[in-house]
Amino acid sequence: MANGIYKPFWLDGESLVIIDQTKLPFSYETKKLVTPEDAIAAIKNMNVRGAGVIGNVGAFAVYLAAIATDGNLQKIKNISQQIRIARPTAVNLTWAVDRVMKVLENTDDSGQDIINIAKQEAIKICDEDVENSEKIGKFGGDRIQEISNAKSGQPVNILTHCNAGWLAIVDSGSALAPIYEAQARGIDIHVWVDETRPRNQGAFLTAWELQQANIKHTIIADNTGGLLMQYGMVDLCIVGADRVTRQGDVINKIGTYLKALAAADNKIPFYVALPSSTFDFDLIDGIKEVEIETRNADEVLYIQGVTSDQILTKIRIAPDGSQAINYGFDITPNRLVTGLITEKGICAANLEAIAQTFLKI
Amino acid sequence: MANGIYKPFWLDGESLVIIDQTKLPFSYETKKLVTPEDAIAAIKNMNVRGAGVIGNVGAFAVYLAAIATDGNLQKIKNISQQIRIARPTAVNLTWAVDRVMKVLENTDDSGQDIINIAKQEAIKICDEDVENSEKIGKFGGDRIQEISNAKSGQPVNILTHCNAGWLAIVDSGSALAPIYEAQARGIDIHVWVDETRPRNQGAFLTAWELQQANIKHTIIADNTGGLLMQYGMVDLCIVGADRVTRQGDVINKIGTYLKALAAADNKIPFYVALPSSTFDFDLIDGIKEVEIETRNADEVLYIQGVTSDQILTKIRIAPDGSQAINYGFDITPNRLVTGLITEKGICAANLEAIAQTFLKI
Repeated sequence: MANGIYKPFWLDGESLVIIDQTKLPFSYETKKLVTPEDAIAAIKNMNVRGAGVIGNVGAFAVYLAAIATDGNLQKIKNISQQIRIARPTAVNLTWAVDRVMKVLENTDDSGQDIINIAKQEAIKICDEDVENSEKIGKFGGDRIQEISNAKSGQPVNILTHCNAGWLAIVDSGSALAPIYEAQARGIDIHVWVDETRPRNQGAFLTAWELQQANIKHTIIADNTGGLLMQYGMVDLCIVGADRVTRQGDVINKIGTYLKALAAADNKIPFYVALPSSTFDFDLIDGIKEVEIETRNADEVLYIQGVTSDQILTKIRIAPDGSQAINYGFDITPNRLVTGLITEKGICAANLEAIAQTFLKI
Repeated sequence: MANGIYKPFWLDGESLVIIDQTKLPFSYETKKLVTPEDAIAAIKNMNVRGAGVIGNVGAFAVYLAAIATDGNLQKIKNISQQIRIARPTAVNLTWAVDRVMKVLENTDDSGQDIINIAKQEAIKICDEDVENSEKIGKFGGDRIQEISNAKSGQPVNILTHCNAGWLAIVDSGSALAPIYEAQARGIDIHVWVDETRPRNQGAFLTAWELQQANIKHTIIADNTGGLLMQYGMVDLCIVGADRVTRQGDVINKIGTYLKALAAADNKIPFYVALPSSTFDFDLIDGIKEVEIETRNADEVLYIQGVTSDQILTKIRIAPDGSQAINYGFDITPNRLVTGLITEKGICAANLEAIAQTFLKI
């Protein structure tokens, strides 16, 4: 993946082109983001999603804001406030926007220079994500290697939830980075792909990514993972994260907590892969301190797919008049997390280890 | 419900009419079962489903076999072997078929008398289910009443998985019987309805049933229950069962185990409602001794719903070429079960309590 063939977005002159992830896997379409408003809408509507990529597009949105305002710092600042809150959960968004803004605020330049600086900082964030993703892949890959060795080369069965591949974090993801790395090392692996209702990022995006990469995988209903673990059909779980607290509580796609409980109950390692930009050091207790994003109930009541004629179609999958509620994330308490796979190695999910690894001066 | 307005099937001359549950909630259609093969197909294709109703239709299938063979006991016996295995998990099916067969084998009658006896025994099984369902409702209703009292009449939030209402067990279900009873008593209740992928019996059937009965409910993705419990938004869980072992391990719709884990982790009562015909006293350890039914992967890869023009449409919801696996049930170990709500009262989920309540001579 590190060869850069697979990119969820790229620069094209003064605009950002994204793969429209709401159309996958049924059609591959791109979308050109010209204004910061385009970028905000793309984040809100989940044309782009995934903690890292939301941050990247947020950073480039500041660049687009710089272009739109001819490098007027005060105006960029105002727009950046809108970008920051395009989606609430992934801490990478505020982190990346604030980082670009800080550089802009610390310069005496103006006009075109401001535009260039914004662009360079956004690129720098992406480059660091690529580097971090590679390291996460290596550390996680080592862990898969150990399990493969312990199984004498029998296939290693990895369960993942949602999508934390290259569509989510450049260049090879967080949760999927170790899986791509394992494949590159020739380890025999098989991935259980949680469908991930209600937005089906597992079935729509992870399965699509794995298919592109020729990695063996099987889609399962989100309800299935517990049974597979009871039956010894899962060797380890790896998921991504949208926000991780200082004590290692993990805010990730709704349903992650249920799989972590099942993994703990069946003594199966449960890893969370993340670049350190996903830590929110202002938070300690995930359950008490995090407000979970509620999205439109229609995401539960309707679903999109293709008919036998390959026509993209949206259908209602509930009785008329029944209501739904749509929470986007849940909290996996640190006690259920075997380890955090980061660019600095695999870190225990507790206050001390995280502080020692990431907050040392 | 006990007024019998809502019935999932009824006799019409020498045939059995069923509500076609594969069409709900999008259209209400009935299907006439004339031959035992019709009944076997209806069970296999899930036109009827739910532990109790599968048993009832199995019993009536023996009656249809008696008609088809002019009451030839040996031929009925042969056909009954096919009926018994139409679906593997719900023990009520073999239990009901064997019960009718035993009565037939113990009579010296023949011909039309055999037909009549089969019919009467099938009706008797249904009548007992109705009676048991009512009792389950009362015992479970008492529990809801206690929680309502403890909450000073604030709404009691009940989470359920799959469908265990009157579409599954005549006349008011197992898991839903206490809910209908609570409503009849004027208790303020609200039901969280797990969508229940991949067949969506929650969104399609339970939501539909609750809507018919004017009971407040909200559909949620199966991934959501854990967060709701973390947030104190669930007061108790009630699910049904397809088979319960002698030590109280519960085989129920895939995903039940994950909710039981979350309930235990959040100290929320987790009840399983069942008539005693759902016990399988030949089994002790659910995980070691039960083979879980695998159904067609297309149930995961495709889904049915209605377009904005109300046209019933099936769409593919995964990339072409990706595979799926479709286990129908999982096992909830007895340690996660607060109590079994049965027609004989609420019984602890362990060997001793179950033996004492159900196996006393």
